[in-house]
Amino acid sequence: MAILALLIEVLVPSILLGVIAQGPIISPEVHADRTVTFRYRDPGAKKVELGLEGADAVPMTKGQNGVWSITTQPLAPDLYGYSFTADGEARLDIHNPSTKPNLIWIGNMVLVPGDPPLPWEVQSVPHGLVHHHFYKSEIIGDERDYFVYTPPGYQPGRGPKLPVLYLLHGYSDMANGWTAVGKANVIMDNLIALGKTKPMIVVMTLGYGVPDFASPNRSGFRESGIVEKNYDLFKKALFGEVIPMVEHDYRASSNRKDRAIAGLSMGGAETLIIGLNNLDKFSYVGAFSSGGLPGSLDSNFAGFSGKKVNNALKELWISCGTEDGLIAPHRAAIAWMKAKGANVDAHETPGRHAWMVWRRNLAEFSQRLFKD
Amino acid sequence: MAILALLIEVLVPSILLGVIAQGPIISPEVHADRTVTFRYRDPGAKKVELGLEGADAVPMTKGQNGVWSITTQPLAPDLYGYSFTADGEARLDIHNPSTKPNLIWIGNMVLVPGDPPLPWEVQSVPHGLVHHHFYKSEIIGDERDYFVYTPPGYQPGRGPKLPVLYLLHGYSDMANGWTAVGKANVIMDNLIALGKTKPMIVVMTLGYGVPDFASPNRSGFRESGIVEKNYDLFKKALFGEVIPMVEHDYRASSNRKDRAIAGLSMGGAETLIIGLNNLDKFSYVGAFSSGGLPGSLDSNFAGFSGKKVNNALKELWISCGTEDGLIAPHRAAIAWMKAKGANVDAHETPGRHAWMVWRRNLAEFSQRLFKD
Repeated sequence: MAILALLIEVLVPSILLGVIAQGPIISPEVHADRTVTFRYRDPGAKKVELGLEGADAVPMTKGQNGVWSITTQPLAPDLYGYSFTADGEARLDIHNPSTKPNLIWIGNMVLVPGDPPLPWEVQSVPHGLVHHHFYKSEIIGDERDYFVYTPPGYQPGRGPKLPVLYLLHGYSDMANGWTAVGKANVIMDNLIALGKTKPMIVVMTLGYGVPDFASPNRSGFRESGIVEKNYDLFKKALFGEVIPMVEHDYRASSNRKDRAIAGLSMGGAETLIIGLNNLDKFSYVGAFSSGGLPGSLDSNFAGFSGKKVNNALKELWISCGTEDGLIAPHRAAIAWMKAKGANVDAHETPGRHAWMVWRRNLAEFSQRLFKD
Repeated sequence: MAILALLIEVLVPSILLGVIAQGPIISPEVHADRTVTFRYRDPGAKKVELGLEGADAVPMTKGQNGVWSITTQPLAPDLYGYSFTADGEARLDIHNPSTKPNLIWIGNMVLVPGDPPLPWEVQSVPHGLVHHHFYKSEIIGDERDYFVYTPPGYQPGRGPKLPVLYLLHGYSDMANGWTAVGKANVIMDNLIALGKTKPMIVVMTLGYGVPDFASPNRSGFRESGIVEKNYDLFKKALFGEVIPMVEHDYRASSNRKDRAIAGLSMGGAETLIIGLNNLDKFSYVGAFSSGGLPGSLDSNFAGFSGKKVNNALKELWISCGTEDGLIAPHRAAIAWMKAKGANVDAHETPGRHAWMVWRRNLAEFSQRLFKD
């Protein structure tokens, strides 16, 4: 009984049969010299561009059978997000199963592998575990989720409590931003294996205090007070729901010396608002490419005292990419904090507002944590 | 300091600015009468179709500004996969953040909610937990992953051992097929809350014994012996790696009376091959829309004895959709097993080779498990 042939006949829809008829489109194709060829079939489009994360859009060239393509210059080894734009409309690379989940800007990802591998490439080291939790938030009023990374060898119920990093995503990310795109679990696995980063629990929770704060059709983003409300309810849910659940379910230390908070972009703003206004709760604060503080620094950090910050925090680590449009407010915030006497560990790195910056930020910041 | 304005300026790429300039495209739009409007902008396309899971492709109509649209008839409440096809090429709905991960056929999903809600809609009931494990398979030779669902209230290390359902995905699915698309964790949460399904552990592992057996550009699918090798190595990794790890890490029973195996399509074939040839290992076997058995039933199930099957299994549950192209081999397999005296719990349901069938299969099958 030729069930296999039947399986193929039934399972392979016209999409793939069409592709087979034309010859398969391979995209992306990463070459040995680290150039990458992207291909996209669209016979009717007048203009197609490649949008590679961290770079300006570049035009693709139309070839045979309506296949547009471009081969890049050799790229630095990294994990890149990308999408196509055809006549002004974003398109995914349907031939690449590696997608970049996002509430607004879904895309694809392509790895240009490093030699040696980058910390965010899966390597044959002991792996930690990622737990996906679901709960009804009474504070925010929706069903939501959070992820908890436990390091390799972690045993529930056995051994001492572990330090915890609360790690916040950016605007438009889903709760899985730091794992599915940021590869936080892979980074932690690799750096722990090298002895560079201490074993720790990493908690990654949905970072919106307002349900649907980020959605494809959201028009209320500039609605008066909504940004403040978003941060305030998020903070309440973090302190009132997420942290208590984590400390109940895991061997997670509740001692402030064992707690760090960090985040990227909107999550960086949340980190600063929550971390600097709750110096009794955390000993390490890390803000990567922060954006989205409502109002002035004086209003967000009323009563900011460099002395108090220095006494409370072992590390106030603030970074931004030099090509990020947020570099000016980043520098202004650093100057403002330093003028008030705070010891800021300030970092500028190459790059835009992009995951290639944030993965490096996490890799660097994590090595500063819980060392004594 | 208007950091918020800067954030918006920096974070909102030309994609969205373009959309705002034209007015936002809302897709999909689920109306109160359960009709759904799909929209897709493509000024240059000559022909655009909607491919809704479980139905024939239907043409969309070109309107203003190159926006193609279609409004369906009222749809039965369900979670539907879909994608567009423009001039023969598959396209995702970039405006819908709900994507359907797949190694070959990525798509979107849209929920037409039920009243009362369907078992695969998230409801305010106690939620279980989904654990994402990563490991190097020495048997298969790659870095791979599996998911483990534990029911609400599960405490590591405390209480009696729980029964386990080993649940296998289909060809082209990733290891997250049964959670991200099949909503197995949601189904279990809801049915456990209703007292219809017993609390159990569900293990969902990557179902390929050959690395890259499913990939967008795979040409070797019909390579001699590869299907047999795929199943054989998968079986060895399941018995030699996954089950031992699960039984080490969880309160998972290793008693055959507490073990079930089930799967869809390729995973249904794997379920039958593994389950019926290892009657000492499982007490429940469930095959949903099975496809991909290499060779004949006689060769796959050498020594099949209805009497032995009946003695060993509390449930041999085999199902297929009546509009599925696999319905004929399904019926033939049922007849073959019955002719050999096996008690087969055979089911035919409306539907094609689609997740709407398999979610219902899981909901039904799970209620038969571990009842005494």
